[in-house]
Amino acid sequence: MTQSQQESKLWGGRFAEATDGLVELFNASVPFDQRLAEQDIRGSLAHVAMLGQVGILTPEEVAQIREGLQGILADVRAGAFEWRLDREDVHMNVEAALRDRIGPVAGKLHTARSRNDQVAVDFRLFTKEAALDLADKARALRAVMVAEAEKHLTSDRGEAVILPGYTHLQVAQPILLSHWFMAYAAMLERDEGRFRDAAERMDESPLGSSALAGTPWPIDRHATAGALGFARPTANSLDGVGSRDFALEFLSAAAILGAHLSRLSEELILYSTFEFGFLTLPDSHTTGSSIMPQKKNPDVAELARGKAGRLFGNLMGLLTVVKGTPLAYNKDLQEDKEGVFDSYDTLSSVLRLFADMLPRSVWHADVTKAAAARGFSTATDLADFLAREGVPFREAHEVVGGLVGLASRSGRQLWELGDGELRAAHPLLSAEVARSLTVEESVKSRQSFGGTAPDRVREAVAAAKAALS
Amino acid sequence: MTQSQQESKLWGGRFAEATDGLVELFNASVPFDQRLAEQDIRGSLAHVAMLGQVGILTPEEVAQIREGLQGILADVRAGAFEWRLDREDVHMNVEAALRDRIGPVAGKLHTARSRNDQVAVDFRLFTKEAALDLADKARALRAVMVAEAEKHLTSDRGEAVILPGYTHLQVAQPILLSHWFMAYAAMLERDEGRFRDAAERMDESPLGSSALAGTPWPIDRHATAGALGFARPTANSLDGVGSRDFALEFLSAAAILGAHLSRLSEELILYSTFEFGFLTLPDSHTTGSSIMPQKKNPDVAELARGKAGRLFGNLMGLLTVVKGTPLAYNKDLQEDKEGVFDSYDTLSSVLRLFADMLPRSVWHADVTKAAAARGFSTATDLADFLAREGVPFREAHEVVGGLVGLASRSGRQLWELGDGELRAAHPLLSAEVARSLTVEESVKSRQSFGGTAPDRVREAVAAAKAALS
Amino acid sequence: MTQSQQESKLWGGRFAEATDGLVELFNASVPFDQRLAEQDIRGSLAHVAMLGQVGILTPEEVAQIREGLQGILADVRAGAFEWRLDREDVHMNVEAALRDRIGPVAGKLHTARSRNDQVAVDFRLFTKEAALDLADKARALRAVMVAEAEKHLTSDRGEAVILPGYTHLQVAQPILLSHWFMAYAAMLERDEGRFRDAAERMDESPLGSSALAGTPWPIDRHATAGALGFARPTANSLDGVGSRDFALEFLSAAAILGAHLSRLSEELILYSTFEFGFLTLPDSHTTGSSIMPQKKNPDVAELARGKAGRLFGNLMGLLTVVKGTPLAYNKDLQEDKEGVFDSYDTLSSVLRLFADMLPRSVWHADVTKAAAARGFSTATDLADFLAREGVPFREAHEVVGGLVGLASRSGRQLWELGDGELRAAHPLLSAEVARSLTVEESVKSRQSFGGTAPDRVREAVAAAKAALS
Amino acid sequence: MTQSQQESKLWGGRFAEATDGLVELFNASVPFDQRLAEQDIRGSLAHVAMLGQVGILTPEEVAQIREGLQGILADVRAGAFEWRLDREDVHMNVEAALRDRIGPVAGKLHTARSRNDQVAVDFRLFTKEAALDLADKARALRAVMVAEAEKHLTSDRGEAVILPGYTHLQVAQPILLSHWFMAYAAMLERDEGRFRDAAERMDESPLGSSALAGTPWPIDRHATAGALGFARPTANSLDGVGSRDFALEFLSAAAILGAHLSRLSEELILYSTFEFGFLTLPDSHTTGSSIMPQKKNPDVAELARGKAGRLFGNLMGLLTVVKGTPLAYNKDLQEDKEGVFDSYDTLSSVLRLFADMLPRSVWHADVTKAAAARGFSTATDLADFLAREGVPFREAHEVVGGLVGLASRSGRQLWELGDGELRAAHPLLSAEVARSLTVEESVKSRQSFGGTAPDRVREAVAAAKAALS
Repeated sequence: MTQSQQESKLWGGRFAEATDGLVELFNASVPFDQRLAEQDIRGSLAHVAMLGQVGILTPEEVAQIREGLQGILADVRAGAFEWRLDREDVHMNVEAALRDRIGPVAGKLHTARSRNDQVAVDFRLFTKEAALDLADKARALRAVMVAEAEKHLTSDRGEAVILPGYTHLQVAQPILLSHWFMAYAAMLERDEGRFRDAAERMDESPLGSSALAGTPWPIDRHATAGALGFARPTANSLDGVGSRDFALEFLSAAAILGAHLSRLSEELILYSTFEFGFLTLPDSHTTGSSIMPQKKNPDVAELARGKAGRLFGNLMGLLTVVKGTPLAYNKDLQEDKEGVFDSYDTLSSVLRLFADMLPRSVWHADVTKAAAARGFSTATDLADFLAREGVPFREAHEVVGGLVGLASRSGRQLWELGDGELRAAHPLLSAEVARSLTVEESVKSRQSFGGTAPDRVREAVAAAKAALS
Repeated sequence: MTQSQQESKLWGGRFAEATDGLVELFNASVPFDQRLAEQDIRGSLAHVAMLGQVGILTPEEVAQIREGLQGILADVRAGAFEWRLDREDVHMNVEAALRDRIGPVAGKLHTARSRNDQVAVDFRLFTKEAALDLADKARALRAVMVAEAEKHLTSDRGEAVILPGYTHLQVAQPILLSHWFMAYAAMLERDEGRFRDAAERMDESPLGSSALAGTPWPIDRHATAGALGFARPTANSLDGVGSRDFALEFLSAAAILGAHLSRLSEELILYSTFEFGFLTLPDSHTTGSSIMPQKKNPDVAELARGKAGRLFGNLMGLLTVVKGTPLAYNKDLQEDKEGVFDSYDTLSSVLRLFADMLPRSVWHADVTKAAAARGFSTATDLADFLAREGVPFREAHEVVGGLVGLASRSGRQLWELGDGELRAAHPLLSAEVARSLTVEESVKSRQSFGGTAPDRVREAVAAAKAALS
Repeated sequence: MTQSQQESKLWGGRFAEATDGLVELFNASVPFDQRLAEQDIRGSLAHVAMLGQVGILTPEEVAQIREGLQGILADVRAGAFEWRLDREDVHMNVEAALRDRIGPVAGKLHTARSRNDQVAVDFRLFTKEAALDLADKARALRAVMVAEAEKHLTSDRGEAVILPGYTHLQVAQPILLSHWFMAYAAMLERDEGRFRDAAERMDESPLGSSALAGTPWPIDRHATAGALGFARPTANSLDGVGSRDFALEFLSAAAILGAHLSRLSEELILYSTFEFGFLTLPDSHTTGSSIMPQKKNPDVAELARGKAGRLFGNLMGLLTVVKGTPLAYNKDLQEDKEGVFDSYDTLSSVLRLFADMLPRSVWHADVTKAAAARGFSTATDLADFLAREGVPFREAHEVVGGLVGLASRSGRQLWELGDGELRAAHPLLSAEVARSLTVEESVKSRQSFGGTAPDRVREAVAAAKAALS
Repeated sequence: MTQSQQESKLWGGRFAEATDGLVELFNASVPFDQRLAEQDIRGSLAHVAMLGQVGILTPEEVAQIREGLQGILADVRAGAFEWRLDREDVHMNVEAALRDRIGPVAGKLHTARSRNDQVAVDFRLFTKEAALDLADKARALRAVMVAEAEKHLTSDRGEAVILPGYTHLQVAQPILLSHWFMAYAAMLERDEGRFRDAAERMDESPLGSSALAGTPWPIDRHATAGALGFARPTANSLDGVGSRDFALEFLSAAAILGAHLSRLSEELILYSTFEFGFLTLPDSHTTGSSIMPQKKNPDVAELARGKAGRLFGNLMGLLTVVKGTPLAYNKDLQEDKEGVFDSYDTLSSVLRLFADMLPRSVWHADVTKAAAARGFSTATDLADFLAREGVPFREAHEVVGGLVGLASRSGRQLWELGDGELRAAHPLLSAEVARSLTVEESVKSRQSFGGTAPDRVREAVAAAKAALS
């Protein structure tokens, strides 16, 4: 950087020596914070309007600055704005461009404002809008889940699609595929709630906190907060410029949603293996191999699972940044943005991709039903039968456990055991009882609230649709 | 474990071979989940009452089981309960003890219930109560912050205590100590909000989800939810037993609060160094050295800062556990509890310790005020003076930057510059103007909403007191 | 704590006020650092012997102290030592017990030593030994992997067991089960290396660094280092008491090993599902369900997978603790131990459990071979055939890709395609060529170094056995 | 993407439907993996040369392909290569460009190779070189530390610069500034070692592992390994394409180094505050404020401290990615690169910036010496005096603790206590003894190996210089 550039720095006054070139590069945030250009200019427009309202600037000054800013905004939107690394950050780039356009009056825009509250307001605007957008996208994916749940209540044969329910990835009990979809709908509902709660909590404008202590200028912070769509101004200037828990809360909600999506991805990957064979993902959302001509890989689901890593890492990163820093602003906080941008972009993509992919995926109802019948998945039903006849559940469990062992060792299912074997295990049992243990009956029987019986799931779907509309 | 113990396992029926001893140890959760004994027994009491209400158990059976459970609860509370490792977990310990007390009827308690929903309900009860308790404790510490803020509005000399406000840990502008306290009050208010939002979102009873699919027994989940103080039952059984985002949200709120407390700790540690000298922490909350007789170490603050590590680690730990696990329950989820217990205990202690320590700490108002005057902390005021006279702020900034350089090189403060030097820098400046730049005037001038002017801080304190009462 | 206890504190001299009870509890590390008792006493024995050698203590004093310490060590080992919370940490407990035993001469043990170097040496001893122990255990599990690899080179039928090789969890190419075992052996070899490198890098004794600056006493640090089995003393006293990268490196190696074990666990869980059906885990290492009598859950593998969470969390925790702390010792560092203990214990158990479990697991060679033939796993072989005949590989890939599509849509395998269909795709193809594509031939053909051909794997096993012996 | 583009995909053969546009974008790694272009082409050059050597390709084919690749490499280096998103990744971009240049013979380059081993070898080359480069840069910064240590052994007045040594950020004992520099030199030495160990452990070529199982082509993996500068080929093909512990180890070493740099940063930030006043950082490495004309902020140190966040986050991210993924390659692993690039770039910058900044920073020896005398920093020396006279250290500690309390309450230093006060505390004490307790004497006395006495530090510097040369 030349000395003249140094002089053009907005803070160069007291410095005898120019900034080192590598330092310049290291400090520069413009490669990533230019993403906040829109928010930055909106913030400046609100600020200058208010400066006019309270009489700090004249109407002419306001008009000049506003016009200049709008021109810059148009350039930014058109991709025609020239971002300069030697102008350090988005704020300096915009302000210097403003000076280039309208001359020294541009300097009045920075009255009663500091880069500390400026970046705080820009970043809050972004994060709040990102949180609301992810809330909407989580809701949209939830709607897809509910629609899929509804769809699979009626398969080609008229009956609801049955899926093995797993615990420990061992077949446990038969469930409805629709019930499985509704489980993810429930998670996404809470994910949406977390983003909305976060958006509400951060819905405060730090603009006017100035460097850290507020300002002697007779500004109207409620006016700028209102103009920017914030519910209120922040109540403490130190907190306004120095806190980043709003970003941490955003990143936490993102990490938790990412954890949910990684579970969904894992199941989709499993279910579309040859071994499970439950599901065919659409060609449009899978890819092939450069060496193995037969491969059809569930790349989207795999990447979505892997992207939990960056979501967790971004959260860990910012927690680390904040740890142990004194009030108010420290340069460390410049590290707050990239993680938020990245987590937002990641989830934006994944939520949309899943919303596209799931309705185009094909479930193989025969395969899932056959799988649901394996693994003695109705053993609990047999135990429940005994218990309903008065046998303490623990004893019933032991009896059936023995029968499962017997069947397993001889390669049979429970309903293939002989009458004698069954009666020997317990006098209340018989071949007739065993034969009644179909997966359909099992599913139908689980009528408890929140259970997998078709009636219950139908009610759950109806309730979810009502809530979504 | 002997074969007879194996047989006594609640799931031994189908197993031909005994569990390996080390496996037993590895699987056993009773060393830590015994902490859920109270919740477990409350859950069982609610369950058995409901089983009676809906006619699954007779009144006699209910009475027997209830009495047995209450006896066990009394033992647990008295520390007289014998926890057995070979009984695996808290549930098996309680149930086996019940059988020891009341015989085989104990087996009926497990009707229409699985350990999957049992542990889910126990752990939710704990986590919800922990969230509410930390919300209360964050609120209590906030009340201390507000009280301290109020106290320091009037120092021994009648004026509010002035503190240097820092950015980049360089003196930036003078602020009120009360303003600093209110910044932490604002953070704690949001922390409380996060815990309350989390508690509300998790306020659902998974009991009755059974293993994963619901149950054929005609249970009343709304009744058990109500009896346990939950707002409602969970709406999907897979989600009820398989989701742990409630714990993740708790751990996130804990990590963010921990980040805030680490910042507070850092400042207390700094301010109580010899070099800063702002603060004397109470003997009761500091410790000495075994080798250096003069040491008085801020151990509580240091430990609190360090404990951010375990709070972050616990969150990362459970995120990792959940990542990529299929529905519904997997044994991995057993790893969910220790982190929640640990984060809860950690914050319980730290919040109480700070609430005790801060009111007993002594701030040295002379030292803080003198420090606030150093470092040209009123240079912005001088620039603002010029700007108010019509000089564009950016130009004013440059003028004052030059004066700071001049003063700095000659070892003077701004108000020690000569009239000539000042006028040479800008014709609007004079020695008189420079002398008016006291820290008191600076603080008083920052009247913007949320600013550090005494009137503003007094209003903020009053509003906070009203909100807290 | 009473005032008299306060007076008994080793640092109480300058304090006017007693430590707060809750603070006492909060600061106390004895609940966990008592685990270092053995290391602490070994350190003291080395220190006192050296104090005698250099003439700081008389032979009588040395003898008295040594005898006292040995008595305490015997008590500790016998579980007869009374740990007192009001004595804060392991060091104070041992020292106070020594004073109780031998009177005021005990006070001379602390000559030329501080708790700062004392805890540093104790914890290094522990961590170094833990690292070496995990290196040994990783090696032992590697030996099991190699033995399993060798075992499965010859199945019941005389041929090596064939497993589907997966990428993207889609069947890719047939491999040998032995080859799969050798992949984990390779990972474990590097894991062992990481622990040994860490142990070597931390093989330095900080004892004699004293509080932070060294000591005026004429001590011999090389003597104590040697007596404790360290390679050398640390070269800088600030670094000796203030650094914890040795613990971070240990936790990193543990996290990486944990990641490897989580992958192995995932595969064992998958392979023992009904759907894959490749593997039966031993009853001794699986458990059942309290409600589903048929369940046989791979709990050990699931827990091992989940325990990656605490291993990652412990690492993140200590990284956070260290971040931004100034030199030399800060109380934050007290948070260093629990994570190391926990990661050590976790891996100790998991490594042993896998070493026990794997040899007792039964692989179903028929199932794995049939699975390896599915999914057009030999399509690459067909493309390679064409490429060997001179067709550019990319073109060959496209030809075979088309055939796979054809076969897939008509529910056939590649070798079931007709001669005409094959020739139509490429004149060099024929039914004869297609029929030669067996999984055995495929495996046998992959003769490149490190490939899955039986000869290559046999060589790899032989090399590994040689390296291990 | 158009259908024709789909057809041009290297794996499109079996797909009926085009890839979704958003999926394309989501899967594309070329925006970041183009950074591996150089490594990718080096790998291809080694591969094609070997294919010629073993007779798979003709000399003409080899020549054509080599020439084509070199042309592409030249374009890449000149920034003239056109990266296309629809060509997915770096490999496809290079290969398609090769086909554009030399026609269908380009397809022969992919003989006996898969993208799985191709990306594995590219990424290992990068990571190994990055590890070695950071090892060099850590060494260079160590050399700066040692040079600074040497420089400050002789201040302007001829004596070594004295600094307060801190524990708990409370003045503990006087040390030499040079000793402080040598502490960081010791940490950096271990950091270097970690990178070199990692580089050595990953010094294996996976090329030739092919998709996962090796290849039937008669390739020579030792030849390609040698040509690429690897010590050897990987011994197991599954491990070769599926493992990423080399990247995890790199990220761990980076995180630990980052933790060290965050500690150094913290101290530089503290020491350059007004309150400490020990240090003036160069103008070239500090920046100003847009609102506060007097500010000179230690931005480089702050950013370096904050960047610990991304270093920890990148590690956590990749650990998460790897957790629980089955062998061999999964698309999740595509997430491995950005974190490694980012951690490498971050440390490259920070190490260089510190190496530039430290020699240009000015330490204020008078200030540091005066600070070292405060806080009763020689109290240990007084206790040691008594202990040397035969008083048990614990008793001596208590006596001096009392004197510190007395002095502290009356605002005096230890050497300002009266003869009577001293003798009353212990008959061996006197004003003469107290007056001998200067910081110079204290420092000089700490002659133990690794201690802060000037002779010891001089030896340490000499040894370090010898080791570095």
